[in-house]
Amino acid sequence: MSEPTRAYRFAVNVTPKPGILDPQGRAVERSLPHLGIAGVSAVRVGRRVELTVAAANEADARAVVDRLAAELLSNPLIEAYAVEPLGEAAPAGVAG
Amino acid sequence: MSEPTRAYRFAVNVTPKPGILDPQGRAVERSLPHLGIAGVSAVRVGRRVELTVAAANEADARAVVDRLAAELLSNPLIEAYAVEPLGEAAPAGVAG
Repeated sequence: MSEPTRAYRFAVNVTPKPGILDPQGRAVERSLPHLGIAGVSAVRVGRRVELTVAAANEADARAVVDRLAAELLSNPLIEAYAVEPLGEAAPAGVAG
Repeated sequence: MSEPTRAYRFAVNVTPKPGILDPQGRAVERSLPHLGIAGVSAVRVGRRVELTVAAANEADARAVVDRLAAELLSNPLIEAYAVEPLGEAAPAGVAG
């Protein structure tokens, strides 16, 4: 790459789609009485993936993250994802 | 509870602490060349838990989430958590 690159940090939040059974969320809900916690409901457990992308600009970086989220980090049949920009990152050792 | 309650939605983002080995993050990094994706680094895989808390006010709800995050949703030895308020929620079936 001859173009100077910057490093951008993103989070990808992956959550079970509405209506999809979420055994981990149910397990959390069932643990609550043992902790003496009441009033908590609708618990959904997903994944959060944080990563750094080296690219010429934020739009290029975002495109990489979108592809990664759709093709590798989520199962589109049962999960939804949202990309959250976390700002520019220190351009440390970027080994793709 | 005689006091009127509201419902607040939160997310708890749980991530491996810096320096802690993250096998899932490594697995993602190793998959990238197969997808033809370069320039991605520092991948960390954690959990994202979304939940609704019924409480008299947001501060009370937040206190419940903080306790839940520290005692049930994260392992403080190896994980850090951050609580993210998602706003007031529809006060649907709140069965603690």
